[in-house]
Amino acid sequence: MGENDQGATPPPIPSQTLDHISIAVPDLEAAAEFYRATFGAEVDDAIEIPEQGMRMAYVRLANAKIELMQPTDDASPVGKFIQRNPAGGIHHLCFATPDADQAATDAGAAGLRIVGGGAPKPGHHGRKLFFLHPKDAIGTLIEVEEEETPPRRI
Amino acid sequence: MGENDQGATPPPIPSQTLDHISIAVPDLEAAAEFYRATFGAEVDDAIEIPEQGMRMAYVRLANAKIELMQPTDDASPVGKFIQRNPAGGIHHLCFATPDADQAATDAGAAGLRIVGGGAPKPGHHGRKLFFLHPKDAIGTLIEVEEEETPPRRI
Repeated sequence: MGENDQGATPPPIPSQTLDHISIAVPDLEAAAEFYRATFGAEVDDAIEIPEQGMRMAYVRLANAKIELMQPTDDASPVGKFIQRNPAGGIHHLCFATPDADQAATDAGAAGLRIVGGGAPKPGHHGRKLFFLHPKDAIGTLIEVEEEETPPRRI
Repeated sequence: MGENDQGATPPPIPSQTLDHISIAVPDLEAAAEFYRATFGAEVDDAIEIPEQGMRMAYVRLANAKIELMQPTDDASPVGKFIQRNPAGGIHHLCFATPDADQAATDAGAAGLRIVGGGAPKPGHHGRKLFFLHPKDAIGTLIEVEEEETPPRRI
């Protein structure tokens, strides 16, 4: 393969879109009120996600979302994070990509580990998603989520 | 003041825009290459910011930026963060607001502490900015930056 061919190789996880930043919080209602009162932001009603041991609400900004997550189970990933960071803190960021299955396959082929291994799984919204291991992503937990169909500018 | 008047009170830091997420990294060139190679993202050339003891580069997505920060001084805030998190990690997020001076005044009046106190200071790009204390922001370090004039959709 020549150098020009290498330049045309598509990235394993094509994305130009930050879908959301996710913040772990000890009290979802207090966090929602902080974002409403301080910035005038719109915050959705809370959604219970028992299979992930958490409840969450989106802060809807003009160009991206902030996902507020409160653990409902101390043994869940968010529960463990809050035990280490009782005041709360930024937990991960999320890129949107057109085809999550293809992206996971290509990421694996590129040597990037997927948290939990295996294929992408549907999130609470039904779209497929997976997480890159922070050790392969400069210390950052990065979620990759399939774009909404049809794409919606948020 | 009646209840209806309270409903009309503007938020201290009006914002609907996430300007960027900031990630501390141990090696800026390795981090830039990760975002280019993995997502096909455009990453700016590095900027040296000696007064903050760091160098940085923006990852430019269609709807927001990711700021990659590498310490050049172990005693700088980013240097201390990397000492606690040697692999790197998400450091803060940044909202854009129309008037940073007014926002800082109104945030103070609302009981929100500004890191370092005092008035907003110009960043490396010349726009005024300040940071809310994480203890007043649900554990998250939040930067507030004056919008670009004229506003530019990023």
